[in-house]
Amino acid sequence: MCFAKRVRESDLIDKIDKALGRYAYSAREVGLGIGDDAALFRPRAGHELILTCDWFLEGTHFLRDKHPPDSVGWKCLARALSDVAAMGGVPRCFLLSLAIPDSHIGRWLNHFLTGLRRASRRFGCVLAGGDTTARESILINITVVGEVRTGHAIRRSGAQDGDSICVSGRLGEAALGLRVLEASKHAISSRDLRLRKHLYPEPRLALGRWLAEKRLATSMIDISDGFSTDLRHLCPAPHRGALLAPDCFPAVEVPARLRTRIGEPLDLALHGGDDYELLFTVSRRKFPSLPLTYRGLKISPIGYVTTGPHLVWDSNDAKHQILRPGGWDPFR
Amino acid sequence: MCFAKRVRESDLIDKIDKALGRYAYSAREVGLGIGDDAALFRPRAGHELILTCDWFLEGTHFLRDKHPPDSVGWKCLARALSDVAAMGGVPRCFLLSLAIPDSHIGRWLNHFLTGLRRASRRFGCVLAGGDTTARESILINITVVGEVRTGHAIRRSGAQDGDSICVSGRLGEAALGLRVLEASKHAISSRDLRLRKHLYPEPRLALGRWLAEKRLATSMIDISDGFSTDLRHLCPAPHRGALLAPDCFPAVEVPARLRTRIGEPLDLALHGGDDYELLFTVSRRKFPSLPLTYRGLKISPIGYVTTGPHLVWDSNDAKHQILRPGGWDPFR
Repeated sequence: MCFAKRVRESDLIDKIDKALGRYAYSAREVGLGIGDDAALFRPRAGHELILTCDWFLEGTHFLRDKHPPDSVGWKCLARALSDVAAMGGVPRCFLLSLAIPDSHIGRWLNHFLTGLRRASRRFGCVLAGGDTTARESILINITVVGEVRTGHAIRRSGAQDGDSICVSGRLGEAALGLRVLEASKHAISSRDLRLRKHLYPEPRLALGRWLAEKRLATSMIDISDGFSTDLRHLCPAPHRGALLAPDCFPAVEVPARLRTRIGEPLDLALHGGDDYELLFTVSRRKFPSLPLTYRGLKISPIGYVTTGPHLVWDSNDAKHQILRPGGWDPFR
Repeated sequence: MCFAKRVRESDLIDKIDKALGRYAYSAREVGLGIGDDAALFRPRAGHELILTCDWFLEGTHFLRDKHPPDSVGWKCLARALSDVAAMGGVPRCFLLSLAIPDSHIGRWLNHFLTGLRRASRRFGCVLAGGDTTARESILINITVVGEVRTGHAIRRSGAQDGDSICVSGRLGEAALGLRVLEASKHAISSRDLRLRKHLYPEPRLALGRWLAEKRLATSMIDISDGFSTDLRHLCPAPHRGALLAPDCFPAVEVPARLRTRIGEPLDLALHGGDDYELLFTVSRRKFPSLPLTYRGLKISPIGYVTTGPHLVWDSNDAKHQILRPGGWDPFR
C-alpha cells in the first residue's frame, strides 16, 4: 500500500510526509503522493521507464551503531539511483519501504529523513509513496522509477571485441572508508574525508545520461559489488574477456603506514564494492570522441574487450595474471 | 539492482528466472527482464502509472512453519495487486526483492516460486526484475506497476455526504482462516476451505477496473487492515462520517461451536484484516446503475456517508453505537 494514515503508524507517516512529501507534491509528474492506496505517475511520451529496487538492511548493508543515520538515508537512495545512471537514464520518483523499531521513530528517523531528503533534492528524484511497518531491525527497500528516451538505454550486453573499457572516478575509495570505519574503536566523524565515498556515494547520473544521449557506450554497469565481479557482467565468459592495463588503473591512494591494517590500494580497487562508479565500453570508432574528464569527473581507459574467456591483468612484471571475481556476494 | 548474475547468488537468480522470467520475456511491455542493472518498461499512451510497494515479512506477515510456501508466494503478490485494484487500475509488471537464508534456496524456494508464478499468470502481472540477498529471516518486498487511463484512477478522497457505501464479497473470512490456523496444534491442509481466503486472497481487479471505466465510484480503498480502520480513510473525521446498517453487513459465517474459540462473526468482519475486498462509495445519482453482483462477486450496500464526525453503527437494539478503528496497526 501507499503510506496510509493510521492511528499510530500515522506518527511515522506524518514525519515522512513532512520531510519529503511536500517536495513531491510540487513535482508535476507525481499526480498523487502520500496518503492513498498507490501513487500515480505520468510518464513522458517517447520514453521508456527504468524500474529498479534495492535492499538496504541493517547488519547486511549498514550497522546501526557505526553508520550515521543521515548517511543511511542518503546512501539507500543514492545506490538505487546508481542503477538508473548505469542505464543512462534520468531518475523521476521513488518508493520508500521502511521497517523500523518503535524506539527509532524519534531522533534516528529525523536524521535518516534529513539524509534521504538531501539525496532526493540533489538528484531530482521525488518520493511518490511506500510502505511502513514495525520491526526489531531496520529494513529498507527503495524502488526507483527513471526514464530514458526509447531505444537509448545502455545495457550490460553489447560490448564487442576491441572496444575500449573505461571507468569513471577512482576505485577502492568506498572500501577504504569501510575498512577505516571497521578498524576504528572510537566514533569517527562522518566528515572525515576518507569516509565520504563510503557514507555518501554519488551516483554518476550526469555522465550516464550524457553517454546515452551521445550513444557513446556499447555497454555499461555501475560498480556496486566490486570491479572484478562487475566487469564479468560486461565481458561474460566464454565469448568475452578483457585485457587490462595496470598503469592506467585509477586505484585509491592509501598512506603507506595504513597499508598493513587497511589493505593494498590495488586490492581495494579491484575487489572493493560500493564505489558506484560507471564501468563502460566504447567502440574503436567512437573512442576518439571520449574526453578524459566529464564535468570534472575523471574518465580512465583501462583496457580492451577480447574474445575471451579470461579477464587478463597485464602486470608490470611481464607475467599476465588472470583476474578472478573477488567482489561482494551475499551468499558467500 | 536488477537480478544480477553472480557467482553463488546466481543459483538463486537462475531459479527465479526459470520460474518466472521466461513468462516475462514474452510480455510486450517489459523490454528488458532479469539480468541487467534495471528493467525497462514501455508505458501505453494516454495512461498514468500506478506505483505501489508492500512488505511481506516472516514473523510479521507470515510464519515460516505455519504458512505453506506457495501461499507466501501467491499472497505477497496478490496483496500488492490489491492496491492496484483499489485505484481501478490494471497490473502490468512487478519487482521482487527477496532476502532468504541459504538453507531455503531448495524446496521452500521452489514452492514459493510456484505460488508466485500462479498469481503472476492469474492476474497478468509479469516479473520485471528485483534484488536478492542472504538473510536469517525471509524478507519480501513487492513493487507493482499498474496502469489506468489518465484521469480515471479512483482515489480514497472523493466521498460526498449521502453517497452509498458498498463493499464486495464477504468480510472476516481471512481473519477466520488466520484464527483457525493459529488455534490448530497440528498441520492443517492448505486445501481446507476455511483457510482459502487467508492463504490465497483474490485482489478484486476486475471489479475495480470496471468501477473506474464506468466512473461509478466516488472513492475506493481495499480492506487490508480491517473494515473499521479502512472505512475511516474514505470518511475522515471531522467532516465525514458514516451511518451503517448491520442488517446488510456481509459478515463471515462462523459455526456456533467455534465462536468461543475463534471469535464472533461481526467482530471478525469489522476488525479482521487481509480480506482484500473493495470498499467504495457511489453517488445517489449513479447508485441505481450498480448491480448486486459483478461477475459472480456480491456487492453489498451497507450504509451512507454522513457529514461526520463518527462512524455510526445503527444496531438492532435501536441504540446507535460508534464504531472505532480496531483493525491492524503494526505499531500497536
